[in-house]
Amino acid sequence: MSYTNLAGANAKMELETAFTGGLPVPAEIEPHLGGALRHTLGHPGSLVRARLVYEMARVYGLSESRSKNLAVAIEYFHTASLLFDDLPCMDNATERRGDPCVHRIQGEAAAVLAALGLVSRAYALLWQGLVGLPADRQLLAGACVEKCLGVDGLLNGQSEDLHYASLPKDRRSPQKVATGKTVSLIRLSLVLPALLGGAQPGEVQLLERLAACWGLSYQILDDLKDVFQQPAQTGKTAARDKPLNRPNMALAIGADGSLLRLERLLALGDQVLARLMARLPSLVYLNELRGRFQEEIVGIRAANPSSA
Amino acid sequence: MSYTNLAGANAKMELETAFTGGLPVPAEIEPHLGGALRHTLGHPGSLVRARLVYEMARVYGLSESRSKNLAVAIEYFHTASLLFDDLPCMDNATERRGDPCVHRIQGEAAAVLAALGLVSRAYALLWQGLVGLPADRQLLAGACVEKCLGVDGLLNGQSEDLHYASLPKDRRSPQKVATGKTVSLIRLSLVLPALLGGAQPGEVQLLERLAACWGLSYQILDDLKDVFQQPAQTGKTAARDKPLNRPNMALAIGADGSLLRLERLLALGDQVLARLMARLPSLVYLNELRGRFQEEIVGIRAANPSSA
Repeated sequence: MSYTNLAGANAKMELETAFTGGLPVPAEIEPHLGGALRHTLGHPGSLVRARLVYEMARVYGLSESRSKNLAVAIEYFHTASLLFDDLPCMDNATERRGDPCVHRIQGEAAAVLAALGLVSRAYALLWQGLVGLPADRQLLAGACVEKCLGVDGLLNGQSEDLHYASLPKDRRSPQKVATGKTVSLIRLSLVLPALLGGAQPGEVQLLERLAACWGLSYQILDDLKDVFQQPAQTGKTAARDKPLNRPNMALAIGADGSLLRLERLLALGDQVLARLMARLPSLVYLNELRGRFQEEIVGIRAANPSSA
Repeated sequence: MSYTNLAGANAKMELETAFTGGLPVPAEIEPHLGGALRHTLGHPGSLVRARLVYEMARVYGLSESRSKNLAVAIEYFHTASLLFDDLPCMDNATERRGDPCVHRIQGEAAAVLAALGLVSRAYALLWQGLVGLPADRQLLAGACVEKCLGVDGLLNGQSEDLHYASLPKDRRSPQKVATGKTVSLIRLSLVLPALLGGAQPGEVQLLERLAACWGLSYQILDDLKDVFQQPAQTGKTAARDKPLNRPNMALAIGADGSLLRLERLLALGDQVLARLMARLPSLVYLNELRGRFQEEIVGIRAANPSSA
């Protein structure tokens, strides 16, 4: 299987354009909602999920336009989840992507409605991404979207995150929350394009396992950054987990323990990745993504002298 | 075209069961989110939209199970919109369907996450409702869902409702808001089943017009009830529009003017309905629904002696 993929910088730029232009804001829109949408669309973030979805979709033989639609859809789901998470009734955050949170500029209602606008557009893009595909793939894809985004996945993870104080204080609790809150969207990014492209069940299983390893790793990195980095580096409110009593692996088992755990998870992921690459050598982008984890670990070690 | 429809009481009961059981709440769910979902699923309301969707879908030849899925999906969208509308940052309501609002029992975050759970399930049900249908119908249906629920429809209507103070104080403003906020879901209920059933463009146009007449009529009735009825009759917080400065036709042009306008809208709707019935005599349920408007008008006149 071969495909023409976009080189790194080019892909990022094209996905940024697709993200920013993917939800046309009507001229007649109510000004607070319009402002909230334009602000959000003007802050695309790293687009790491969009790029991952795009690359997976291309490898699995989906067309350029279908792949972009899926990529932007999943990035919109992620962005909507950030708007909700930042609300006063959830994390009560003040900054996101280097600017004040949307609810602080346009009000809470506008932030909620803008997030719902992203969700509505995301489903429309997914719908366009799957129209005309065989019915069995459409069914599998629909079930996967719900499993990851619904009350079994992201939503329960977010709710456990908010009520973490009532969970047992051990290393399994942060991992349980991260499985709902963080693994869900990584899983959707890796598995949905594969299902739509007609992947073999064995490949889907490997992608699910890789999503678990990488999603948990990603969350540990995020936890370490919350503890050791400044807002200027992360673009969002830092050191929030401790005062809010939120799950944080670095707070639960310390920085050294977290880094050890992170490296073990990545080693497990490497075994899965090797099996996937043997089946599908064109999944080269996954190697690139694996490299990013290593760069992040170097950054964390530099910020936390005890583990350098 | 003929179909076996469920008789009134039976249909209501079956749709209630489908509503209550349509979103299985996982046993392991975080308790606040679980409580919010169970409370919401245990208060199905009148299910007027579900019944309408179900009857339309059956007339348009969709299977029993597809019709029920669509009906529950659209009712879940409606229910989610009520959870959001009731939030402190929107209408700050205290009662809904005769009980305290979900956010007052389980907290705001749980109400938001439960609403998103309904949205996620609704899209999954829609997806199941359209899998395997011809691609052109899937595309039309997807566009209709987004038009009604997205930033062009329901979301903008809700945002204009919240910021009504900044709109001109004439009879066009409440109507503009109602077109976004109320007509959108009636339109989705009437048009989506028709599109999925392969309706002719002429029929779809008539259904769009009927949705406008009936959606605006429905909102005028709601406005009159806000002014003239007690919570015991409506099950929700009453007399909210004036203190919140929300659009309300009865406040804008008075009860008599509103009733006149309502009757004109219904007369316009009757012309459209007659043309529809001539094409599709099996649309008998629409006649039944038309009769309900008349009953409601009688109730309003009884509560407001000046217009009796």
